[in-house]
Amino acid sequence: MRLLPRLTPIALGAAVCLNSLIAADAPSADEQMLRALYTAALTTSPAYENLRTLVTKHPGRLAGSKNLEGAVRWGEALLQASGADRTELQPVTVPHWERGAPESVRLGTHSLAAAALGNSGATPADGLTAPVVELQSLDALATADVKGKIAFFNRPMNPRHISTGLAYSEAGDQRNRGPAAAAKLGAVGVLVRSLTLTLDDHPHTGNTTFPPGTPRIPAVALSTVAADRLSAALRQDPALTVEMQVHSRTLEDALSHNVLGELKGSAFPEKIILVGGHLDSWDIAPGAHDDGAGCVQSIEVLRLLKAVGYTPRHTLRVVLFTNEENGLRGATAYSTAAKAKNEIHVLALETDSGGYQPRSFNLGNAAGNAHQLAARWQPLFAPYGVGHFQKGTGGADVGPLLAHGATVAGLTPDSQRYFDIHHTAEDSLDKVNKRELELGAAAMAALVYLVDQHGL
Amino acid sequence: MRLLPRLTPIALGAAVCLNSLIAADAPSADEQMLRALYTAALTTSPAYENLRTLVTKHPGRLAGSKNLEGAVRWGEALLQASGADRTELQPVTVPHWERGAPESVRLGTHSLAAAALGNSGATPADGLTAPVVELQSLDALATADVKGKIAFFNRPMNPRHISTGLAYSEAGDQRNRGPAAAAKLGAVGVLVRSLTLTLDDHPHTGNTTFPPGTPRIPAVALSTVAADRLSAALRQDPALTVEMQVHSRTLEDALSHNVLGELKGSAFPEKIILVGGHLDSWDIAPGAHDDGAGCVQSIEVLRLLKAVGYTPRHTLRVVLFTNEENGLRGATAYSTAAKAKNEIHVLALETDSGGYQPRSFNLGNAAGNAHQLAARWQPLFAPYGVGHFQKGTGGADVGPLLAHGATVAGLTPDSQRYFDIHHTAEDSLDKVNKRELELGAAAMAALVYLVDQHGL
Repeated sequence: MRLLPRLTPIALGAAVCLNSLIAADAPSADEQMLRALYTAALTTSPAYENLRTLVTKHPGRLAGSKNLEGAVRWGEALLQASGADRTELQPVTVPHWERGAPESVRLGTHSLAAAALGNSGATPADGLTAPVVELQSLDALATADVKGKIAFFNRPMNPRHISTGLAYSEAGDQRNRGPAAAAKLGAVGVLVRSLTLTLDDHPHTGNTTFPPGTPRIPAVALSTVAADRLSAALRQDPALTVEMQVHSRTLEDALSHNVLGELKGSAFPEKIILVGGHLDSWDIAPGAHDDGAGCVQSIEVLRLLKAVGYTPRHTLRVVLFTNEENGLRGATAYSTAAKAKNEIHVLALETDSGGYQPRSFNLGNAAGNAHQLAARWQPLFAPYGVGHFQKGTGGADVGPLLAHGATVAGLTPDSQRYFDIHHTAEDSLDKVNKRELELGAAAMAALVYLVDQHGL
Repeated sequence: MRLLPRLTPIALGAAVCLNSLIAADAPSADEQMLRALYTAALTTSPAYENLRTLVTKHPGRLAGSKNLEGAVRWGEALLQASGADRTELQPVTVPHWERGAPESVRLGTHSLAAAALGNSGATPADGLTAPVVELQSLDALATADVKGKIAFFNRPMNPRHISTGLAYSEAGDQRNRGPAAAAKLGAVGVLVRSLTLTLDDHPHTGNTTFPPGTPRIPAVALSTVAADRLSAALRQDPALTVEMQVHSRTLEDALSHNVLGELKGSAFPEKIILVGGHLDSWDIAPGAHDDGAGCVQSIEVLRLLKAVGYTPRHTLRVVLFTNEENGLRGATAYSTAAKAKNEIHVLALETDSGGYQPRSFNLGNAAGNAHQLAARWQPLFAPYGVGHFQKGTGGADVGPLLAHGATVAGLTPDSQRYFDIHHTAEDSLDKVNKRELELGAAAMAALVYLVDQHGL
């Protein structure tokens, strides 16, 4: 790309687009506020450096780990430094699963890149060796013979979907429910193809659940390269065996905390606008996008509103939820406490889809029209590249508040890159773009301002 | 992020958005074609692997280099393999500037990360040492004393702009015209702050121009970290000196080629729909985003249309332009030849803003209404995340065709990451996301199909 004497295409297009959207008249108060929030975010934001601190000092923040509690203290201190009137550590009892010594999956002399799923059972200390049955769905279990064998769920995420989140959701039953379903039928272990659209050798962990009474068998995710290798080997030799070693253990529940930080509302202090993310991450992941980005962006919303001199009319509450990845106990504890205190949440906005370029918001309320009510603000967001408002359920942590009458919402960033690194060691700071992170925080601050100022 | 028993927010939002946009009735022919193009792009595209070949075998494809001519042969072969009816290598005489031995800029004992600008003059073999005058604009030259000194243009790109292209354009006069302006006033050398919004130690090269009669002085880009260091040092000691060494040379013009590949139109073979990018890159850059992505995407448009069984009514011509970075001689030669042959271009679509998530198209025509005409197709693009059509001038290589009556257009991808790597050694394959690359190619194929089928 070469500089032209006139504006480059990008620049000219952007300038025209911007000009046509901002009226020739003096900008409205809302337009001015959004401009101030975005300018502050793009010129003075410490969000990226805050994220650097979080993932450098407290990577692998799984429920029960010391790194998670270190992050809790980090979050509280940062909220105080960012100007919160009040902070609180809300105690939450969390499950405590540990990976233990490194897992391994071996096909003959080949080591297949693998990561045990959260909640996986352990193998005997010297491993487990069994034949493998490849399956394309949970339904296929009905006609397969997995008794005494390793069930291998290998249906890939569907690349035809534009939204990678939709592809993830569709393929995810294999990871979430496949191991329990196979265990019920006598499988001795489970392998699952990693939930990613890329072909590489990074295994993606994630939670799996075993209902009471179901044997908790070893359940391990293979990288997509390893899954393809195993599948090819099975076509050559359906009777092959694979050796698995998993040394995980489930300990007694541990104590963790949701981190709360507030700016007290000037007019309706008893009514809450919540903005948050989840503080925990998988043990193998630095958790930069998932969900360190959401945490620093949420704290940044509070800082931005203060930085532009805006005093919220409602109480702004930042919540860093614990235990989203493997239990949702933070969300449950928060919601239970809120109900017990008869708290009124006007809006509960979560960001848990990565620190990528913000594209839209999804909103839900009892009447099912929250996205339509918010759509009147679309022209205000258009200069900033945030396109639309769609019906949705916010995020996993705020979802429970819908039943309490809240409007729940989620920031929906661009989804193309997320599952490349999701739940892996590759979810590191270098994958986060500083400007995209700042733009996401600004978009959230803008929505919070508009709801605070005008209601939904 | 954790899998919910129900769809995740991203997925649910996307599914609802998609459903509401695709009518409950049978999809139209246009909807079906776009779906087929996107599905082919997301499931069968060789574009990413083609890009891997290009940047691995032919990095640093500067005009006059052997790597550029290697890329020319690569492009022709790939167009043939992709199903072009006819290919052509259009000869173009190109300028031939070489960087020579590595440049250096030293501040005392410190080495400042630096890259000479294209067209830079050389220092004496053992370097040039002079005091430095820091400037924030070309206008500041009027009141500065640069005679016998090094002029240091250090105005940063403005982070307040949402569009990074606009920020690049605004700051770019320092690189493009600063050295000549300083040379006219007797400066012996120029340093320019790299045109990027990041603070790091990668220098960004780019072209500068010296009108006839202006001394061609050494002109070097500093990394943003180096520029800040120099600026801080100058505040401490305005009389400091800096040593520059540049060993570049300008050789005789060389022979290069535009690469053309066509599918002959079935109804209007004499009318051309052009889609293209530029094949050359800076010598220090692998050129993955700039503009290898544009080249493979353009070739992919041809492959996609064939893959879905669509025969264009107009002639589809893919053009890989040479010498965009430092001369635009490829664009000039193409445009001159087209005029001489009285060729009619219905549309000339360029992609030269990186292989990132496609966001919109910019279009221009003599009447200034091309973007409005295309906007009727916005509902067709909405499910794919392409939001709008704005007024623009396409790209540097197709711009000249506007005067011949063509509608020119450019794909406008998301701009946040581009200038982090633009014109540096960091513009490598790992910075390109496979799905974003495929989505960009599909978007271009879709626009080409719509113009071919319906006219603009």
